[in-house]
Amino acid sequence: MFSFGDSMARLISQLSRLPGIGPKTAQRLAMHIIQLDDARVKDLANSLVEAKEKMRFCSLCCNLSETDPCSICSDEKRDQSTICVVSDPRDVMAMEKTREYKGLYHVLHGSIQPNEGIGPEKLKIRELQIRLYDGEVKELILATNPNIEGETTALYLSRLIKPLGLKITRIARGLPVGGDLEYADEITLLKALEGRREI
Amino acid sequence: MFSFGDSMARLISQLSRLPGIGPKTAQRLAMHIIQLDDARVKDLANSLVEAKEKMRFCSLCCNLSETDPCSICSDEKRDQSTICVVSDPRDVMAMEKTREYKGLYHVLHGSIQPNEGIGPEKLKIRELQIRLYDGEVKELILATNPNIEGETTALYLSRLIKPLGLKITRIARGLPVGGDLEYADEITLLKALEGRREI
Repeated sequence: MFSFGDSMARLISQLSRLPGIGPKTAQRLAMHIIQLDDARVKDLANSLVEAKEKMRFCSLCCNLSETDPCSICSDEKRDQSTICVVSDPRDVMAMEKTREYKGLYHVLHGSIQPNEGIGPEKLKIRELQIRLYDGEVKELILATNPNIEGETTALYLSRLIKPLGLKITRIARGLPVGGDLEYADEITLLKALEGRREI
Repeated sequence: MFSFGDSMARLISQLSRLPGIGPKTAQRLAMHIIQLDDARVKDLANSLVEAKEKMRFCSLCCNLSETDPCSICSDEKRDQSTICVVSDPRDVMAMEKTREYKGLYHVLHGSIQPNEGIGPEKLKIRELQIRLYDGEVKELILATNPNIEGETTALYLSRLIKPLGLKITRIARGLPVGGDLEYADEITLLKALEGRREI
């Protein structure tokens, strides 16, 4: 097989091991990278190593952070009585973009997926339970994804935590804002109907 | 704006400057990268820097290579009398996959695109002309892309090089193998018709 050289082949192979990067994209990226300035390639390489070195998980909420506890957990202005449970660090980012939620988070790092061999024990549920022991938390918002895995996880958590007596809520399912009723799937429409409110 | 930390923000920003990588993909990649082993992140970072350091352009065919001249130009078993002209190093890779072509290449590094301000002087045409001076090359295969830019470039080159008296050919346009006549656009179909051969 023809190759531009070992160093290029290695770069393409490394890039194509990243998620969502197929061989063609890896080739295109590699081609682009070697035509950048030396300084920019070094910046990119350094940013990889630096992020890997500095990023850790907050020992309270399990979110990604450079500090432990993370900036949200250590922010005394945030409502310590509410925890929003999400599957992924990116979901924290999405929630924070609303600028409305002022409570804390808990990142599960996944959803229950029996078919994939991901049971509750693989998620950061133990860490969540520990946070609920002292009774300071009054509401747990289950904001796992509105799909089968997310619903399963939410159901599991609600049953597990119910005995502790705190309020457990689930984020609303319904039509996305700007969406079109005509194109909504029937389950979304059903959820939107069930969740209707008086105006 | 919420961020997982400066190092993460820098990594996301670096990644999102790569072609075809939007902010969401950059975030997903960054998230994946910081959860890899230390060793794999270092391998990835090193492969970037190493490829950038080692890769250069062959001074004959202008293709990417670690050596100069490149492995194809310095391979005496290849047919030195034929040069296949392509727009991009990736096109060399595609041609080599056929395992049929045994001549040399010339990489233009682009196509003529007047609207983008890319005239012939921006391409490696001067370098091609130099290779044709000694008369050793008997056939020039124009394998630029079968689109407007590629056709323009091929036309420009054929006019420029015609006076040298060598054979100039253009790769065939027609229906892709495995394609469906029904879904072919009319220009491809027209080209397929024009290029028909007796069987």
